Amino acid sequence: MFKSILVPFDGSKGAETALRKAAELCRALDDCKLTLLTVYRHHSMLEASISMVRADEPGNLDDIMRGHAKLVAEHGKAIATEAGCPNVRAFVKSGPTARMIVSFAQEHDNDLIVIGSRGLGSLENYLLGSVSHKVTGLSDRPVLVV
Amino acid sequence: MFKSILVPFDGSKGAETALRKAAELCRALDDCKLTLLTVYRHHSMLEASISMVRADEPGNLDDIMRGHAKLVAEHGKAIATEAGCPNVRAFVKSGPTARMIVSFAQEHDNDLIVIGSRGLGSLENYLLGSVSHKVTGLSDRPVLVV
Repeated sequence: MFKSILVPFDGSKGAETALRKAAELCRALDDCKLTLLTVYRHHSMLEASISMVRADEPGNLDDIMRGHAKLVAEHGKAIATEAGCPNVRAFVKSGPTARMIVSFAQEHDNDLIVIGSRGLGSLENYLLGSVSHKVTGLSDRPVLVV
Repeated sequence: MFKSILVPFDGSKGAETALRKAAELCRALDDCKLTLLTVYRHHSMLEASISMVRADEPGNLDDIMRGHAKLVAEHGKAIATEAGCPNVRAFVKSGPTARMIVSFAQEHDNDLIVIGSRGLGSLENYLLGSVSHKVTGLSDRPVLVV
């Protein structure tokens, strides 16, 4: 059965619910490991100019975003430990969220992605295009939307 | 963990892959049961007129569709048995496919829906609107897209 579960974790309530479900599933299966991935958007001068924000120190802005993502990942590890999965590896990457999740799972040979939905149970909201929606559409491996 | 898995089964290759994965998961978990659901579209006079098909015996057409759906469901049961899950219940319902799957899972208290994607790994194809996409958007419980 599943041996390596990837949980994209952005610190949201939906991501936390997905992480707890993934931890429960991982514990119920033999020889299964859990990996967390927090993705942040790389700061670019283009984005800075579009948003009319004057970025004197773009390097520092990127550092701040990466630092925040690391805190989010650490929070995810703490939740997983509390949920009975202490040996979790957590990664931080920058890039377009859905495509980064899918390519990370391919590179690390994760055989299941567990991801939170917005949990609204509304097709209209879903069709607007959430990350879980994109990941499910792009992934060549099973995706559990919680 | 999951106790009651619902697998919508339409006889397609994608549905068969999802069913085999669901059977594997069900066997790996303690005290888990598998339910199959085959949904067919109810024949209506409106559809008949739109498609320019003259339906003299709409009752019989509906019987034929239901009969075919039952054969598909039986085929699903055989696959599940072969995959090590002999005690599978299979249901046949008519209605709009995605909404029927979601409401069936609610009524029968299934705690996971395992459904096949088109397996193309293309966001564009996914965005066109597959049944798995709609189910994932509508469901208030976890959906595993295989």
